[in-house]
Amino acid sequence: MHRMDEGMPFLLKYENVAWYEDGKVRILDRRVYPTEIRFVTCTDYREVARAVADMVTQSAGPYTAMGMGMALAAGQVRGRSRAEQTAFLRQAAADLANARPTQANRYRIITSRACALAEEALTAGEDPVAVIVEDTVASLNRRYGTMQRVGDLLAEQIPQGGAVLTQCYGETVIGTVIRAARKQGKDFRVFCAETRPYLQGARLTSGCFAEMGFDTTVLTDNMIAWAMEKGMIDLFTSAADTMTLDGHIANKIGTFQIALLAKHFGLPYYVTGIPDRDKRTREDIVIEMRDPAQVLEYRGIRNCAPGVKALYPAFDITPPELVTGAVTDRGIFTPAGLYRYFDGEDRDFY
Amino acid sequence: MHRMDEGMPFLLKYENVAWYEDGKVRILDRRVYPTEIRFVTCTDYREVARAVADMVTQSAGPYTAMGMGMALAAGQVRGRSRAEQTAFLRQAAADLANARPTQANRYRIITSRACALAEEALTAGEDPVAVIVEDTVASLNRRYGTMQRVGDLLAEQIPQGGAVLTQCYGETVIGTVIRAARKQGKDFRVFCAETRPYLQGARLTSGCFAEMGFDTTVLTDNMIAWAMEKGMIDLFTSAADTMTLDGHIANKIGTFQIALLAKHFGLPYYVTGIPDRDKRTREDIVIEMRDPAQVLEYRGIRNCAPGVKALYPAFDITPPELVTGAVTDRGIFTPAGLYRYFDGEDRDFY
Repeated sequence: MHRMDEGMPFLLKYENVAWYEDGKVRILDRRVYPTEIRFVTCTDYREVARAVADMVTQSAGPYTAMGMGMALAAGQVRGRSRAEQTAFLRQAAADLANARPTQANRYRIITSRACALAEEALTAGEDPVAVIVEDTVASLNRRYGTMQRVGDLLAEQIPQGGAVLTQCYGETVIGTVIRAARKQGKDFRVFCAETRPYLQGARLTSGCFAEMGFDTTVLTDNMIAWAMEKGMIDLFTSAADTMTLDGHIANKIGTFQIALLAKHFGLPYYVTGIPDRDKRTREDIVIEMRDPAQVLEYRGIRNCAPGVKALYPAFDITPPELVTGAVTDRGIFTPAGLYRYFDGEDRDFY
Repeated sequence: MHRMDEGMPFLLKYENVAWYEDGKVRILDRRVYPTEIRFVTCTDYREVARAVADMVTQSAGPYTAMGMGMALAAGQVRGRSRAEQTAFLRQAAADLANARPTQANRYRIITSRACALAEEALTAGEDPVAVIVEDTVASLNRRYGTMQRVGDLLAEQIPQGGAVLTQCYGETVIGTVIRAARKQGKDFRVFCAETRPYLQGARLTSGCFAEMGFDTTVLTDNMIAWAMEKGMIDLFTSAADTMTLDGHIANKIGTFQIALLAKHFGLPYYVTGIPDRDKRTREDIVIEMRDPAQVLEYRGIRNCAPGVKALYPAFDITPPELVTGAVTDRGIFTPAGLYRYFDGEDRDFY
């Protein structure tokens, strides 16, 4: 099968996201990348769910991990009775989808489809594992295809020789905007907000752009206003963990703050991705509160004295009035017009 | 001599700031505190200057290190000719003061006075080392005395049972506001912005407040807008590395950004300290650019892939329109009225 990860940076290679082979799912451990290149190997789908919950992989990584985790689950019950296989796969679909609350609706689309495909395969006397793996790669390719239009449109918004500020790690958009820049002959500088506590900007995003030859600079999360005031930034962009139909954006903690600063300095904020059809407004967003231990320490080194507490909201919500445009595969929408996205033809994204 | 560090947290104990004894200056290494309690021992004043440049100590720590470093310098030339001693001490005064550019004017006040005291002591046949050490402790006591009025006024602004957000590590103010809260019977919660890249908020400030029994929570630097929107914060406060006569505040990188967010959410920002008489406006502020390696890594753990760059401005500048009030020992000034601070009686602060 043709794969869309050709010429892409290390982190975007399909094998380095999550990969099923011989009864194992191998997931690159993004918690230690690029300091260490280490993989977590799962032999039970519950370990895949755990890896997603623990953020071994994140951003778009879990979409692939969901599919590969379902393939693993199908392999775990190979040869059992049809009823047992069905029950096990349904349980796996639910367990995997619920690994993290904020994107559970998206994860469920993938695991439910894998369940249905497995049933079909079993009925047809085919191996459900192979069918699910193939569908997972097809889903990845489809997302890259759909998101390429997003990458193209985003690249068009960046002035030639200008500078874009990123937040967190917008996996698929990074790949497609790099490809778009090549295609459009566009060069730009990239500033990456470090994105504590997980440091996605420093550890993941900046490396992808630097590896592809972009002039890439990391800023700690408290340098954003300084850089904007100095005129270093032309445009702020981020992906979205949730995009509601009325234009609220749930994304990595810190996005809201940068969007506020961008507004103050008159800079556009373009969010990228596909709206969530089942989320109407901010009340429909569940914000995951993660273990505050990850704030009290820094990559395993404890920073805080005993008795000090911390908070770790994984995401924040940016209201529509701070969003210049939502860059989708169907064009750039104003947040107020985002619900019209679904006026078009219906089709699978995940 | 009476000392003002009684009942103060570990970090504020005079011996743990910078201390001269028997030809050595011992400085608590704040770069690793509280993970490790380690001291850097200097036997040459140039090592003290190096320690300040390397941020072994920071905030108000260098004020003490300047004095103790001058005592060390005086000890290094004991018994030499008067001319040699004078020349050496003048060189030491300049080297120490220039350890960091943004606060050099303040450091120079301390090292010049030590020079003058040494000359007087030599003329009187006294030991200049003892005289300088005594003056350094007196200076610390004087600053605590002066800043107690600042701590009292700041504590009065915090609503009973409310919450204050701090940025970086405002050493002397922390001590005096803790004392003021006790005196006024005031309890409040403390939120500390982590303050990358050095993590002053997480490593230094939060521990001081928690040690003194305050409910203390660390937030990474990108959680500030989230916390403010949730109504968790009543007041933002920071110290100032420079306070110009027209109300511009140079303080740890990130202060400007928090002040912008505070303005957006309608929260007051109180800066604390004494204005810099010799700095009229923002053009008079030199912003130190530090080694970007400190952004690319943390405590030896490299975060970024090869080829990724970084920036590390040590400070940013908050304009007067974002400052609610400058809390000084002579009352709370509006930024526009700050120049009137010097209408009062002149006296030594450092």
